[in-house]
Amino acid sequence: MSSRIGIIGSAGRMGRALSEAVVAAGQELAGGIDRGEDPTALATKSQVLIDFSSPSALEANLDAAVAAGIPILVGTTGLEERHHWLLDQASQSIPVLQTGNTSLGVNMLSFLVEEAAKRLGEDWDIEIVETHHRMKVDAPSGTALLLGQAAAKGREVALADVSVSGRDGITGARESGTIGFAALRGGSVAGDHTVHFLADNERLSFSHLAENRGIFARGAVKGALWLIGKPVGRYGMREVLGL
Amino acid sequence: MSSRIGIIGSAGRMGRALSEAVVAAGQELAGGIDRGEDPTALATKSQVLIDFSSPSALEANLDAAVAAGIPILVGTTGLEERHHWLLDQASQSIPVLQTGNTSLGVNMLSFLVEEAAKRLGEDWDIEIVETHHRMKVDAPSGTALLLGQAAAKGREVALADVSVSGRDGITGARESGTIGFAALRGGSVAGDHTVHFLADNERLSFSHLAENRGIFARGAVKGALWLIGKPVGRYGMREVLGL
Amino acid sequence: MSSRIGIIGSAGRMGRALSEAVVAAGQELAGGIDRGEDPTALATKSQVLIDFSSPSALEANLDAAVAAGIPILVGTTGLEERHHWLLDQASQSIPVLQTGNTSLGVNMLSFLVEEAAKRLGEDWDIEIVETHHRMKVDAPSGTALLLGQAAAKGREVALADVSVSGRDGITGARESGTIGFAALRGGSVAGDHTVHFLADNERLSFSHLAENRGIFARGAVKGALWLIGKPVGRYGMREVLGL
Amino acid sequence: MSSRIGIIGSAGRMGRALSEAVVAAGQELAGGIDRGEDPTALATKSQVLIDFSSPSALEANLDAAVAAGIPILVGTTGLEERHHWLLDQASQSIPVLQTGNTSLGVNMLSFLVEEAAKRLGEDWDIEIVETHHRMKVDAPSGTALLLGQAAAKGREVALADVSVSGRDGITGARESGTIGFAALRGGSVAGDHTVHFLADNERLSFSHLAENRGIFARGAVKGALWLIGKPVGRYGMREVLGL
Repeated sequence: MSSRIGIIGSAGRMGRALSEAVVAAGQELAGGIDRGEDPTALATKSQVLIDFSSPSALEANLDAAVAAGIPILVGTTGLEERHHWLLDQASQSIPVLQTGNTSLGVNMLSFLVEEAAKRLGEDWDIEIVETHHRMKVDAPSGTALLLGQAAAKGREVALADVSVSGRDGITGARESGTIGFAALRGGSVAGDHTVHFLADNERLSFSHLAENRGIFARGAVKGALWLIGKPVGRYGMREVLGL
Repeated sequence: MSSRIGIIGSAGRMGRALSEAVVAAGQELAGGIDRGEDPTALATKSQVLIDFSSPSALEANLDAAVAAGIPILVGTTGLEERHHWLLDQASQSIPVLQTGNTSLGVNMLSFLVEEAAKRLGEDWDIEIVETHHRMKVDAPSGTALLLGQAAAKGREVALADVSVSGRDGITGARESGTIGFAALRGGSVAGDHTVHFLADNERLSFSHLAENRGIFARGAVKGALWLIGKPVGRYGMREVLGL
Repeated sequence: MSSRIGIIGSAGRMGRALSEAVVAAGQELAGGIDRGEDPTALATKSQVLIDFSSPSALEANLDAAVAAGIPILVGTTGLEERHHWLLDQASQSIPVLQTGNTSLGVNMLSFLVEEAAKRLGEDWDIEIVETHHRMKVDAPSGTALLLGQAAAKGREVALADVSVSGRDGITGARESGTIGFAALRGGSVAGDHTVHFLADNERLSFSHLAENRGIFARGAVKGALWLIGKPVGRYGMREVLGL
Repeated sequence: MSSRIGIIGSAGRMGRALSEAVVAAGQELAGGIDRGEDPTALATKSQVLIDFSSPSALEANLDAAVAAGIPILVGTTGLEERHHWLLDQASQSIPVLQTGNTSLGVNMLSFLVEEAAKRLGEDWDIEIVETHHRMKVDAPSGTALLLGQAAAKGREVALADVSVSGRDGITGARESGTIGFAALRGGSVAGDHTVHFLADNERLSFSHLAENRGIFARGAVKGALWLIGKPVGRYGMREVLGL
């Protein structure tokens, strides 16, 4: 039996990929709305919403899901503290899953990086390098930051206190305990991420490579289906994977 | 305060690296013996033994450790069922640590590979590739097999049932659930290992690179020191790392 | 002004990719035929043919191109000596481009591998590793062999005399001057190839990664367009690239 | 028959590696001097000088070589325009080889990167990433810049006009024709360098990995021996390799 999934932010590249992934997963597309459209009607005919629109639309989207009493998966990036407060509020009435990356592989990587950082001492220097297509306008990527946060959590430090990004010029020797970020840009790369742990005479490197952006849409659909029927509360992708 | 460490198999390349690592770690070299020499005297003047000699010498080495009532770390490769039985016997009288690889990084990798294999379905194909120097005479490496065993354990299968090594010619499509091995040889490579998890449209890759063979000696010394004062029983390197 | 391109072997995955690439390049699709269909009519309405069908169809395809006096690009794999003789014959009447790989990147890689092999001595061991999707039935890949041939040519040896593929078990130390091959299989990998040159204490590695199979279709269309108006003769992809 | 080699800058880590490499190559160590010592006497008893000291000592070192009428290999980094003028002057009396990197592999890589950049259009974005040990104080490495210069030369542009280093924050989309640099720091990494050429749907990557710093000393000795008996003039490592 298929479920009815509603897409918020359906017009962009990710929106189209989501629509395709819903169909490919044998589910029903309840409909899609885009910038400025009211999510209320979409929510009433859906069993779950997937929101990849924009932070400014988040409040209305959460309200619509709460009013309809259905779960919502939020993959929007650029969220601020205020938005996380809204997500927490909504999650007292409905199941809410918010994530910076819906790929199963990236979430597995983030889990393993946290485990490694917890167990390897500070004599293992952590460096994160990512490559994305030439159109990407910011660095480091949201996924690189998500991996950095997993490493910082494993070490029980705040990423903001240890993060070093974009080394250039006379930097001095590497400060122990820092987490470094570097970004490459070019071609049509959908997203490569590597977390290095570099020690004296040995190195560990953990990588994820996305062959195309379809994996993010498929992961979102998998997460949305998982969310249907779950208890009220706030979730992340790791719980979808049983991590 | 330093500990007295005795080396069995002290004449070879690994033996010399062990002697250096004992001194570099600020410990005392109790002495070393080589092929055909009796370990009894060495055991009486050591607080712990490190054995990187040969399977045929194992029984005498374990007997000497048991007689002296001191722990022993065994890094000898090529052990068979019979040797594991001897190790189990000795571990009823003294602490015994046996391992296929004493590098901290490789043991961390093996732990994470097991975790990943446990959680990722069989739609993630596992492939292990290793590179070693041109003098290595066998393939896959013992460490590649150790990593394959970790993956198989995570999936609750026996490695022997799913292992595919050295693809060549008309192989047919990849059989689901198998674990593939490939070996590269050349130059002076001390040891690179990568475990790939390959799914539709995304890939995870976990790598270890040894810059030189010194890491194995340092890990052995670390393990030997950890073993002093431990309860009677059989241990592995993962316990040294708290994994 | 667009050119009319005819596709032989249009029904398969590669055939569809070729049709898309013709349109994407702003060219005109003269038509397509598949297994058992006669290429004569297609040739008369095309300015160039692209043949990705099968070795058994090659003779009829070349005859049709010769009869119509138009060039043909042949990307069919599995060609034998007899087929190369046919290609040589046809190339006395029309421009013929035959290639094992139409990707611009792979052909650049093959050129650079030949240059490197020519200049680096036999103390640089050559190892070629490739990864392909789980459905691939043979190993090593045609492209890995193409790269091996480039390396062998640079060293002025015959690949068949120095090739070692699928190491497994007790192999003995690496024999100097050999070229090793290893194959990984899994997921949906479109094609990764790396040629390693491994020396004492340093390594060079040259890699190509195909994000999807579209690059082969685009390269074929580029090659076909280049072929229109060229003098009678036999060509390869390197000439398209000006290598 | 062995040659007498004099080392300028003999006390540091590189100086000791040079002394070892001279002996390992079966040559004679004519002697070594360090900071503040006069090179005149050393030059009179040497057949060739190797200078890895500092830019401020260059003039005196060149004068000593010219006075003794012997060749000199200069591997000092941080040279400015003034120093290159001094090198040009000296090269009118003696053979002078100046280089930013004495590794054979790096020089081969630089040659191939120039060839690739010459032939691949600007739709192949060039990105250079390097990793070095945690004590390195500047970024990008001199070798990364040497590789960037090779790429720029291949494209017939000035590196200074197209170089982008240390991306961080809101960078905007990648500007076509630029050459990007990124630096990772950690552990004891002797030096990894990768030059990526990233196009739509395919990528080429060319890497060099130094297992230890000994390769630079061995390359310097090889270059110094090559220099003995050469005609007056200015040389680079590529000529030692016959590139």
